[in-house]
Amino acid sequence: MQDFKYYAPTEVIFGREAESQLSTMIKKYGGSKVLIHYGGQSAERSGLLKQVRKSLTAAKIAYVELGGVVPNPRLSLVRKGIELCKAENVDFLLAVGGGSVIDSVKAIGYGLDYEGDVWDLFIGKGEAKTCRALGVVLTIPAAGSEMSEGCVITKEAEQEPVTPTDMKRSYDVDLCRPKFAIMNPERTISLPPYQTACGITDIMMHTMERYFSHDDDMLITDAVAEAILRTVRQCGPKLLIEPFDYQLRAQIMWAGSIAHNGLTGCGTTGDWATHNIEHELSALYNVAHGAGLAAVWPHWAEYVLNENPTRFAQFAVNVMGVASTFRSAKSTAQEGINAMRQFYHSIGMPTSIPELIGRKATENEMQLMADKCTIGKTSTIGNLKKLMYNDVLTIYQMANE
Amino acid sequence: MQDFKYYAPTEVIFGREAESQLSTMIKKYGGSKVLIHYGGQSAERSGLLKQVRKSLTAAKIAYVELGGVVPNPRLSLVRKGIELCKAENVDFLLAVGGGSVIDSVKAIGYGLDYEGDVWDLFIGKGEAKTCRALGVVLTIPAAGSEMSEGCVITKEAEQEPVTPTDMKRSYDVDLCRPKFAIMNPERTISLPPYQTACGITDIMMHTMERYFSHDDDMLITDAVAEAILRTVRQCGPKLLIEPFDYQLRAQIMWAGSIAHNGLTGCGTTGDWATHNIEHELSALYNVAHGAGLAAVWPHWAEYVLNENPTRFAQFAVNVMGVASTFRSAKSTAQEGINAMRQFYHSIGMPTSIPELIGRKATENEMQLMADKCTIGKTSTIGNLKKLMYNDVLTIYQMANE
Repeated sequence: MQDFKYYAPTEVIFGREAESQLSTMIKKYGGSKVLIHYGGQSAERSGLLKQVRKSLTAAKIAYVELGGVVPNPRLSLVRKGIELCKAENVDFLLAVGGGSVIDSVKAIGYGLDYEGDVWDLFIGKGEAKTCRALGVVLTIPAAGSEMSEGCVITKEAEQEPVTPTDMKRSYDVDLCRPKFAIMNPERTISLPPYQTACGITDIMMHTMERYFSHDDDMLITDAVAEAILRTVRQCGPKLLIEPFDYQLRAQIMWAGSIAHNGLTGCGTTGDWATHNIEHELSALYNVAHGAGLAAVWPHWAEYVLNENPTRFAQFAVNVMGVASTFRSAKSTAQEGINAMRQFYHSIGMPTSIPELIGRKATENEMQLMADKCTIGKTSTIGNLKKLMYNDVLTIYQMANE
Repeated sequence: MQDFKYYAPTEVIFGREAESQLSTMIKKYGGSKVLIHYGGQSAERSGLLKQVRKSLTAAKIAYVELGGVVPNPRLSLVRKGIELCKAENVDFLLAVGGGSVIDSVKAIGYGLDYEGDVWDLFIGKGEAKTCRALGVVLTIPAAGSEMSEGCVITKEAEQEPVTPTDMKRSYDVDLCRPKFAIMNPERTISLPPYQTACGITDIMMHTMERYFSHDDDMLITDAVAEAILRTVRQCGPKLLIEPFDYQLRAQIMWAGSIAHNGLTGCGTTGDWATHNIEHELSALYNVAHGAGLAAVWPHWAEYVLNENPTRFAQFAVNVMGVASTFRSAKSTAQEGINAMRQFYHSIGMPTSIPELIGRKATENEMQLMADKCTIGKTSTIGNLKKLMYNDVLTIYQMANE
């Protein structure tokens, strides 16, 4: 068991009436001039943006707007947001959307309070001391960014479209944890099935990354992690059949927050190799992060299984409902990985690179991704097994079959 | 499912090295002149107070001290603390102890920032707008006060010792949630078995109070609640056999926080009748709160069982490990209550008033407690079933057999 810190200060307002508290929350946390940050047209079409504007206007809170956040949110828009907020003296940032919008707003928040170039923070050349206060109106449960310290930004190559020289990097410190998150499950009912399934995958993976560890003696963290994973495994496929079910949407939405706010990692050393391996996939092929995770995880799991077979067996029995043979942890573990593959397929997720991108990756692409993943073969990823360049390349190759 | 708020901003530092962060945490949250508040001699004997003083001195943080907090912490000491802090210009409050010390410090925090008499807050005659910043070094896992908004204070009668005119009242608002909690399981290893068992009972009850509800459609909250309850049920008795086991102490200590920080009540309407019924027992007989809860709960459960038998059956199966007959929810439910009785006995807890206080309560005492519990027969307690004076009296009588 590792000593740990747990810090999840975000004030969550959850339920059908959640949005009614928006302006109260902004004022509570000192906002008088707000940036409303969002993605594409869906927030406009759904009427949510209109409702947010109305709520702020009624409360006499001034605001400016910046839309256009895309999945794998871009540094260029972050820079634009920083300039806009400086020019407009914005003192509070509001993300209306999912993980990409929240991460984009977090990066703007860092940039506003940081003297140098904000990208420095993501490549280890600088350290933030503060971050502008920010809040969230969540519309896509998946990333868990509404309660987390995570922030992932992609720096584009000089020419669009996305090229192999893009870099997707994270900067994870507590300063950017949202002050509040408004979470109304009704807002997620219109999410398309593929995006819902990507969310389910991402939510489970946030807990799985923390669960697969050599620190397997924090029983209460395990029990909570398994409870969340089991609930999502049970509710996820039902939700794809009954997408309008408020109760099921609520389970998934709340699971997304508590799977990634730190709770499921108390006392364990997280692994995070799957996330790192996936980040290069979504940066290179611009695929959905959740789908990329499903394409990677079974191969990562088979590659590292021998590091802690009983841990994978515990996952198989307690989460995936596999019957333990009590003879071979390894075979129980393998059954659990197979069950997870079946689960991914059952919700329409890929379990290989060809299923993910519609073709095989080239050897050259895989080498490039493995190289970037290990920062030019100079570092390792993961903790359950520390993966070097050759390990990562092998996992890409396994996923490419 | 109820709309809900979840807000647990306390920064938890957990593990063997936790105390090393104390002065950093106090400074982070703006403390320059600290009140060290504690209970009896055990904090001194264990060397903890010495370590706290040394840490503050090394960090050049000034402090004053006030000890003497007793179980069911008293208003008179709270008042003394308020006077002391005003005279000494204290800007940060530090509780070194368990729930009683933390609640006492919270009440001092309210009193420092409130213009009127602090007791007004506890009897509904006033409302706090702020509370002085406070932190915790936790030594007794039980009350969960280190992450909660709860604060329970007892106003003594004019003559000591405690008399039936004592009033034990709570004031539960977010303002008093501690800024940080230092939690080192090693500090709990010297706790005597009875106190350990009282803690186990209290920890489970904080989640059970939220679990027994008509809102039984928040599956993920149920799953997390059951996971915590199962873990405590499994680790608790082992801990009484192996009191020096760090790992077991860690499970119980962390369970104490997450069982009561709001997590296990997301989307449910808490009941809290057992707590209310117990508060009168501990105020009148000055018994340990945890033991009082064990003496009350089985009788409350049997009295209200018919309100939601499937909920009690789910508890029996998912928490207590009772085999479901799939025929009668009520008989499964009753088996669960019986199993809980056995569990209480197995850890040395009473399950009746005579076992708790060593004699039967008089009819007069029970009437007095039922009267105070319902504020002179004017209000109800509980939610699963709203209990009036006669209901509460009947539960005392059932517990008195």
